[in-house]
Amino acid sequence: MAKELVFGHQNPDTDAIAAAIAASYYLNEKGMDTEAVALGKPNDETNFALNYFGVDALRVITKADTKEVVLVDHNETAQSVANIDDVTVTHVFDHHKIDFKTSAPLFYHAEALGSTSTILYEFFKKDGIEIPTKIAGLMLSALISDTLLLKSPTTTDVDRDVIGKLAKIAGVDDVNDFGLDLLKAGTDLSKKTEKE
Amino acid sequence: MAKELVFGHQNPDTDAIAAAIAASYYLNEKGMDTEAVALGKPNDETNFALNYFGVDALRVITKADTKEVVLVDHNETAQSVANIDDVTVTHVFDHHKIDFKTSAPLFYHAEALGSTSTILYEFFKKDGIEIPTKIAGLMLSALISDTLLLKSPTTTDVDRDVIGKLAKIAGVDDVNDFGLDLLKAGTDLSKKTEKE
Ligand SMILES: [Mn+2]
Ligand SMILES: [Mn+2]
Ligand SMILES: [Mn+2]
Ligand SMILES: [Mn+2]
Repeated sequence: MAKELVFGHQNPDTDAIAAAIAASYYLNEKGMDTEAVALGKPNDETNFALNYFGVDALRVITKADTKEVVLVDHNETAQSVANIDDVTVTHVFDHHKIDFKTSAPLFYHAEALGSTSTILYEFFKKDGIEIPTKIAGLMLSALISDTLLLKSPTTTDVDRDVIGKLAKIAGVDDVNDFGLDLLKAGTDLSKKTEKE
Repeated sequence: MAKELVFGHQNPDTDAIAAAIAASYYLNEKGMDTEAVALGKPNDETNFALNYFGVDALRVITKADTKEVVLVDHNETAQSVANIDDVTVTHVFDHHKIDFKTSAPLFYHAEALGSTSTILYEFFKKDGIEIPTKIAGLMLSALISDTLLLKSPTTTDVDRDVIGKLAKIAGVDDVNDFGLDLLKAGTDLSKKTEKE
């Protein structure tokens, strides 16, 4: 049987990719059989993070070929797979406003934190599940990306706490240095500079 | 300033009342300033539980007079306060299907467990917050009520585990005995019998 798919929104950002990988790992540790996929190719910033931590890019889908799916970093139909109305959402992990309707109860966890990866860190911690180094690196990248290195107004005290915990697990000594490189990788400016 | 209101659905059942009381206590322990209220008078079953554990019935409202509210045991507009569209929902704790829309991120936790009280037990546990005896008694009553003493098809292994934990805290030695009395109190049959 095909594994249950876990994915973030269309035009994925680093959090959409990292949270899919982290949630899939977390749910598998809890006994599920899931696969993290993406609804588009990684952007330049996400590619930087994937390369940095040695993680392969996710398989890209536009339609889910499983009956059940897990949504991360989004909940709205328009941002999801083309056939979202024909599949059953069993879990949502998200930090956005909600516009969501289902015909059956499900697991839905949203919090107004800086990134979905921050939320997932809390789930790993609650259940005493260790986060693999590479996944922690991607989650750290997502937290940095979504909060612009803790500078965006959506940043919370939880994000300020979790960023250090993730950096430690990921083996990133200088979060500021790494974060600036990551954010730079995602800007057109750096692209131009590299090409010139 | 008025305390933020915490309430269950209209025509409240035991879970709507117990979960409001439990969630309000939990959120206050986490530093918020909330008051549990109800969108209607307790039914016979809930009155039995309130009397048994020595808890006063909640203040009844139909309209929220605070800007922010917490929803428990429901999420749909039609089941909530009359002015739900004019207030901000900051938290939802629920175990029902979802039909929900907001304009800002919030805390939303739903799980397909037997009762909202079961979910709240898990939150108390996660944060190491002790549940007062009387509140545990109400939560136990709600779990029994929603799952018909673990016999409804919505009953999960988590409910089967939590019922014993809540009974222990509540000082209820024979859950089956207590549960049958509770469910009987909610039936027309027992009412007639009392009157006859
Ligand atoms: Mn995103
Ligand atoms: Mn995000
Ligand atoms: Mn109810
Ligand atoms: Mn309920």
